[in-house]
Amino acid sequence: MTSPAIRAERLQQRLEAFAHIGATPAGGVNRQALSPEDREARRLLAELAQARGFQVFQDAIANLFIRRSGRDDSLPPLLIGSHLDSQPTGGRFDGALGTLSAFEVLEALEDAKLETSGPIEVVAWTNEEGSRFAPGVMGSMAFAGAADPAQWQSLAGSDGASFSDELAATLAALPEAALRPLGTPLSGYIELHIEQGPSLEKEGLAIGVVTGVQGTRWLKVTVTGEAGHAGTTPLPYRRDPMVAAVGMMHQLQASVMPSDADARLTVGRIATIPGSVNAIPKAVTFSLDLRHPSAIRLDAIEGEVRAICRAEGEKQGCSVEISMAFDMPPGVFAPGMIDTIEAAAGRLSLPSKKMVSGAFHDALFLARVAPTAMIFVPCRDGISHNEAEYVEPASIRDGARLLLEATVAVAYGAAMTSGGERP
Amino acid sequence: MTSPAIRAERLQQRLEAFAHIGATPAGGVNRQALSPEDREARRLLAELAQARGFQVFQDAIANLFIRRSGRDDSLPPLLIGSHLDSQPTGGRFDGALGTLSAFEVLEALEDAKLETSGPIEVVAWTNEEGSRFAPGVMGSMAFAGAADPAQWQSLAGSDGASFSDELAATLAALPEAALRPLGTPLSGYIELHIEQGPSLEKEGLAIGVVTGVQGTRWLKVTVTGEAGHAGTTPLPYRRDPMVAAVGMMHQLQASVMPSDADARLTVGRIATIPGSVNAIPKAVTFSLDLRHPSAIRLDAIEGEVRAICRAEGEKQGCSVEISMAFDMPPGVFAPGMIDTIEAAAGRLSLPSKKMVSGAFHDALFLARVAPTAMIFVPCRDGISHNEAEYVEPASIRDGARLLLEATVAVAYGAAMTSGGERP
Repeated sequence: MTSPAIRAERLQQRLEAFAHIGATPAGGVNRQALSPEDREARRLLAELAQARGFQVFQDAIANLFIRRSGRDDSLPPLLIGSHLDSQPTGGRFDGALGTLSAFEVLEALEDAKLETSGPIEVVAWTNEEGSRFAPGVMGSMAFAGAADPAQWQSLAGSDGASFSDELAATLAALPEAALRPLGTPLSGYIELHIEQGPSLEKEGLAIGVVTGVQGTRWLKVTVTGEAGHAGTTPLPYRRDPMVAAVGMMHQLQASVMPSDADARLTVGRIATIPGSVNAIPKAVTFSLDLRHPSAIRLDAIEGEVRAICRAEGEKQGCSVEISMAFDMPPGVFAPGMIDTIEAAAGRLSLPSKKMVSGAFHDALFLARVAPTAMIFVPCRDGISHNEAEYVEPASIRDGARLLLEATVAVAYGAAMTSGGERP
Repeated sequence: MTSPAIRAERLQQRLEAFAHIGATPAGGVNRQALSPEDREARRLLAELAQARGFQVFQDAIANLFIRRSGRDDSLPPLLIGSHLDSQPTGGRFDGALGTLSAFEVLEALEDAKLETSGPIEVVAWTNEEGSRFAPGVMGSMAFAGAADPAQWQSLAGSDGASFSDELAATLAALPEAALRPLGTPLSGYIELHIEQGPSLEKEGLAIGVVTGVQGTRWLKVTVTGEAGHAGTTPLPYRRDPMVAAVGMMHQLQASVMPSDADARLTVGRIATIPGSVNAIPKAVTFSLDLRHPSAIRLDAIEGEVRAICRAEGEKQGCSVEISMAFDMPPGVFAPGMIDTIEAAAGRLSLPSKKMVSGAFHDALFLARVAPTAMIFVPCRDGISHNEAEYVEPASIRDGARLLLEATVAVAYGAAMTSGGERP
């Protein structure tokens, strides 16, 4: 038995192979959830698994599991993985990197004939992106018992497809995957993913040790004033909702993020009614995307938004309505898992920092049912959800090595590298 | 021969009759240019004219003229009138008040058998609104030689209709209107119109003596930054065009109108790309409607806009592009005509003020070819381009009386009321 080691060129080849499934001319992938491309990717992974003697399972929402047995398969598995579905014009690494790196870990363990006490499983969660069928993180949400899949029975996709039909077709396409119940006990969950942000690259770090997922709140602000003629209405007679909205956004942009490095406030969408060049608008609506890893701070930011909007509305004689369009509480990962990963990165001499994830991940829901952590690797310019998404081969290697080191450390409660006990 | 006098109830009835043509359920009119409703209104006016023995003419762009002969019809006529076409959900007074008040003036002169040296003509200009076929003030623009109608030959309407076909149909529908050349000499032009703004009503004045039309400039500002994920991108790594745009609008809203009571600056339309709630925009575009009666000040305001936009763009690392979408220089009316109208208002004990028009009118182009002035009357809450548009009967009466007094004063160079010479 040898020390298990990642074979970087094998992982690189796997990434290439999967990048062909749903490939777009611009070098990305269109491999949306429960599509023929998704089914093709699942088939390929299942066949690679069976070639190594791993067992393949799926549950009722088509989450795909690949098991490498341990001494005692009745023990709850350690689960590693991510998702395989993509955005319509997605990159080849978002989800695929984590899933295929996890499979490479299984292969490395198998190459080294390392025996573990319980099973190690790779997972490809169904419909993480939510672009074809909303909502996203669907498979992990259902696994964690946070949603009942029955509610999605009549769901139609962005392309008009029937969710039920596509789910049935996806399950049927992999008859060799034995069916298992939805939601099974785990000993832990580790997910590797690209950062989808610019900070690791800009700070020259190899690894992000992710401590949790920010809470997210989407607000819709509607400011109503009085429509009027842009030419004939002098200033004292105006109740201009655009002036009020600008006042609101200006204050919020100047105060929220500058005073708190963990906060995010973004105006992504705005519209005026009637929207004529020569009309003082009757109303303005704009969106606010608020994020913070602390639920208390998120509440405080929302309170600040409401107070500022009310005040600026009053200044212009406008009324303000704020509705909540989306609310996802922060998720906190397990301190023990975080420490294990950080220590593993140290042993591999990979410069790292602790950080919060700005984007949702399946790990957010897994954290509710098992000790969970995530590993980030840098992606070029932080670009994701974009066909130009790119990860350096060195980062691919670093991430997979750390995932293997961390998997073994969690499986054994001991370090693999530098003098740790071998089982 | 008696002193000519407006018959207010007759004018009120005419307004009612025309309000039925293209009437909307909400009490307004949909009588767009060169439509069947427009043709019906022209027919009705032509018949009323012929019933009084007035002659009816039209030119190649379907401007409609009604002549009451003077002693010498070779003299250039004094022209009074406005337009009959409306917005899709327009009010019953915008344009119709001025045209029908002018016709009431002709009827009052005819009732009194008052002989004038040259002819007095009423005009209904084609397509003032520009809502169906752009641009607006089309008939007066062509009359004044400011545009060649040939350029509109292939024009299609907002409803897909062919401008050429509709123009031909409109001309053909009034065979009794003799054709005259496009653009004929005038001795003067007076237009009565609703203010379409709130100031006369709020200041308790009966009449606005209009000294000119503001210059108008429409700019399109495009701010380009860097798209990004709203959750993962920290503030130092953002080049957010929405922040830049808000900075621009905030400064402009705070400085331009507050420092100059004659200036108007309005943001009527704004959009983000891609326009997702969770995306820092790649770009933001917004419109600026700028107005000022002074061309020099309009240039200075545009300069201020460009400087502020450039500076705010730089602060956020964004590029800025500003294009001119529309540019109408200010129009100045004839001092002699203005004085005549002001004096006439005084003789009728109508409280008035001099003021600039915030909206375009046919008078803007007439001012290029003849001594021109306008009379404003208040409309309720300043509302126009709206089915709720309303003018008090007292204001209708005041406007028509003043139009008659001013017409006679211009035609004779003398006052009609209070001891002026009778011809």
